[in-house]
Amino acid sequence: MIEPRPTDRWIQAGNPADFTFDVLDHGYVALERIEGTELDVVNAARVSYGKRSEELTDADRGLLGFLIRERHGSPAEMVGMLVRMRLPIFVMREHVRHRIASLNEMSGRYVELPELWYVPRPEDVRVRVGKPGHYTYERADIELARITAEHIEMMSASAFESYRTMLDAGIAPEVARVILPVNTYTEIWWRINLRSLMNYVSLRNAPTAQWEIQQYAGPLEAIFEAHWPTIHAAFVENGRVAP
Amino acid sequence: MIEPRPTDRWIQAGNPADFTFDVLDHGYVALERIEGTELDVVNAARVSYGKRSEELTDADRGLLGFLIRERHGSPAEMVGMLVRMRLPIFVMREHVRHRIASLNEMSGRYVELPELWYVPRPEDVRVRVGKPGHYTYERADIELARITAEHIEMMSASAFESYRTMLDAGIAPEVARVILPVNTYTEIWWRINLRSLMNYVSLRNAPTAQWEIQQYAGPLEAIFEAHWPTIHAAFVENGRVAP
Amino acid sequence: MIEPRPTDRWIQAGNPADFTFDVLDHGYVALERIEGTELDVVNAARVSYGKRSEELTDADRGLLGFLIRERHGSPAEMVGMLVRMRLPIFVMREHVRHRIASLNEMSGRYVELPELWYVPRPEDVRVRVGKPGHYTYERADIELARITAEHIEMMSASAFESYRTMLDAGIAPEVARVILPVNTYTEIWWRINLRSLMNYVSLRNAPTAQWEIQQYAGPLEAIFEAHWPTIHAAFVENGRVAP
Amino acid sequence: MIEPRPTDRWIQAGNPADFTFDVLDHGYVALERIEGTELDVVNAARVSYGKRSEELTDADRGLLGFLIRERHGSPAEMVGMLVRMRLPIFVMREHVRHRIASLNEMSGRYVELPELWYVPRPEDVRVRVGKPGHYTYERADIELARITAEHIEMMSASAFESYRTMLDAGIAPEVARVILPVNTYTEIWWRINLRSLMNYVSLRNAPTAQWEIQQYAGPLEAIFEAHWPTIHAAFVENGRVAP
Repeated sequence: MIEPRPTDRWIQAGNPADFTFDVLDHGYVALERIEGTELDVVNAARVSYGKRSEELTDADRGLLGFLIRERHGSPAEMVGMLVRMRLPIFVMREHVRHRIASLNEMSGRYVELPELWYVPRPEDVRVRVGKPGHYTYERADIELARITAEHIEMMSASAFESYRTMLDAGIAPEVARVILPVNTYTEIWWRINLRSLMNYVSLRNAPTAQWEIQQYAGPLEAIFEAHWPTIHAAFVENGRVAP
Repeated sequence: MIEPRPTDRWIQAGNPADFTFDVLDHGYVALERIEGTELDVVNAARVSYGKRSEELTDADRGLLGFLIRERHGSPAEMVGMLVRMRLPIFVMREHVRHRIASLNEMSGRYVELPELWYVPRPEDVRVRVGKPGHYTYERADIELARITAEHIEMMSASAFESYRTMLDAGIAPEVARVILPVNTYTEIWWRINLRSLMNYVSLRNAPTAQWEIQQYAGPLEAIFEAHWPTIHAAFVENGRVAP
Repeated sequence: MIEPRPTDRWIQAGNPADFTFDVLDHGYVALERIEGTELDVVNAARVSYGKRSEELTDADRGLLGFLIRERHGSPAEMVGMLVRMRLPIFVMREHVRHRIASLNEMSGRYVELPELWYVPRPEDVRVRVGKPGHYTYERADIELARITAEHIEMMSASAFESYRTMLDAGIAPEVARVILPVNTYTEIWWRINLRSLMNYVSLRNAPTAQWEIQQYAGPLEAIFEAHWPTIHAAFVENGRVAP
Repeated sequence: MIEPRPTDRWIQAGNPADFTFDVLDHGYVALERIEGTELDVVNAARVSYGKRSEELTDADRGLLGFLIRERHGSPAEMVGMLVRMRLPIFVMREHVRHRIASLNEMSGRYVELPELWYVPRPEDVRVRVGKPGHYTYERADIELARITAEHIEMMSASAFESYRTMLDAGIAPEVARVILPVNTYTEIWWRINLRSLMNYVSLRNAPTAQWEIQQYAGPLEAIFEAHWPTIHAAFVENGRVAP
């Protein structure tokens, strides 16, 4: 099975100054804004008791662990992040299912889509083995993988050529785009609170998720870990279940 | 400009017994369940006053008009519908943006997608005219339209042939699907309350929406009109703005 | 510790014909509408595979168990319920925190609130023992409990007498109500899908919840169990964690 | 009719350095964090066109007006605010109905509630005139208003004295609190995005809203106006309807 990349590799891979990550062949995750600190989560929780901390103490770190362990999720909604991403449509289609988030996306109705599409590297082409309900994925034989990647490249280039031809003939972009494949790259702004992000990474930075979405969920979890480390540690310790 | 089809044409087109509509070349909208009546909306509103109606009176119909006019939307959340739809991925991508709804979709990770794709009829192929921010759409010249439709058919068939070849070689469906175009049909179950549905039809059964999604929003509005006619009339009278 | 009432007592206590439950001294839970069956949940899940069942089989029951165990929650959003409840304001204040639900409530701005308030039976008056973070609740000494209940009755009656006096003097209801206590009964219509309901009962029909809200969560779980028994059994087996 | 206080009075009343507002007799609104600028809203909208602005231009200001006018609300979800508030329970009960927001509240189960309650100034005591559906509110006769305010003060003090007595006897706080009136102050942390905030201020900083909640909605709108002035101006020009 192809291993999900560990988070520390993402932290090294990203530029710590601005948390921009190259993803797949033409994609990226770029942090636009971090909203709030662990102290905000602590103080939102402490309002239940009419208390407030001025700086993060050990007792506060203990409280953060308690919140995750006992699944009190609402304080984690007080912080979050805003990111920009470029990602293939088939990966975007999984992101948009996370309803507790805000999203704006490049529109194929308004603009001509950039000529960017995803082609897996040969080593990332998978075959499926096993039976329904128990499938696992393995690397394809290298020759098959190479042919498959070339084929995906050729089919995608051909679709974009058709797209270009139709646009040049005056066909409306919203019509011409219908033959573009789902590996076409799109761009989004995505804003999500930490509670919803924990749900996202629990599902998408997991071995059962499609390998390509793991490549986006990894960087997002790296940002999570870098900015709210106590909460991230508690999240991992408690089985990666969102509160 | 291509006119949106009026709702009454949809009501005639649907089978009144079961509200199943053929849409585009291979799509459909099928009503699975209606949840609640106008009387439920009335009574949810009347709980504010500690009142309850046993049958729908003229005063109740007046109240329904008042609710829509004054934009008191929460009582309309007490009713809704569950539908099944088959629709192209590029139309699905607009449906899923309506976050206040529940959705399950056919998965290209788990199954081989059916060999069904959308090709516009020549009369539905559009060109875009005008300037950015002021675009309108017109029917393409018939010869151009014919060529375009044939081209879309050919490119789609070719993509599915590639998909089939990759599957036969053992490539995982989640990888092989990446070259399928966004006019590939998918299937969903979709549950939405009437308040959220009014928002959907105000945006999607509108001349500014892409023509293909209008073909789905029309039947959905026809179901709305048939089951909650007083509310629908008020919705139309008040400028088709969701409360 | 005061035990939460088991669900089977609620099923017996309710009228099976209409699922109306008397709760506390003047409250109730009344089922207004059940929306959907276990077969709907199965078929919403099976759309991922492009399949549909016509009646619930053992394989379908197995699938329902799988969905709960593996925390695939979205199919459970395809069914739900609409209930009416009369409940004290302090209990209402906990219900309204469940955001994925629709709600209409009696308004003290529009109507004079009914002269109904909650007084605990002496055996339901609790003292709190233990230390912060480790509190438990025990029955109060019977004499203290009796005095407390009488005191709550007297204070509530006095508040309503003041309320009445202010209303008779012409004071606006929205001003006069400000002295009414939080044990005043209010009435709501509440619509919730089964996924959100599982979250609600996991938190509110639990020993850590306030005893009074358990009295509402019990009947709601009884309705859940009666209408979607396979899902309920799987929910209980998997530690009462909402998917 | 009692006029809602205009926003500029709130801006003057607040401390521009930290946007802390005294509200009613013991309440407050305190800005904890502003999340994002008008440029973020512009750029989230411009991603549809694959564009990005580095600083806010006149064209960008025009775009912001267009978004509000045409009711494209999603870019306004990319910014928001986090506030702390102290407010009477009956006002809190209106805030919590705004579901697209995050909230943590002081808990009467965990702590003894502070001895703080709201008493209207005599000039804020209203009588209701007119008929159902057409009510308006006027200042009560000064003598009646004075007596009413004194009465509310006395009843509240008496309720808190009872609360104290029950706590001293060992009664659990969650039981003792049931006789506290709905003018008891509570404290919350509240995080809301700008789209949802526009909906809130359209409903709550309006003459039809209860006067007391207007006193909170005014400061919140003042923060909105100070931080996103172009959007606020467009919101006002377009009839104060949330996009």
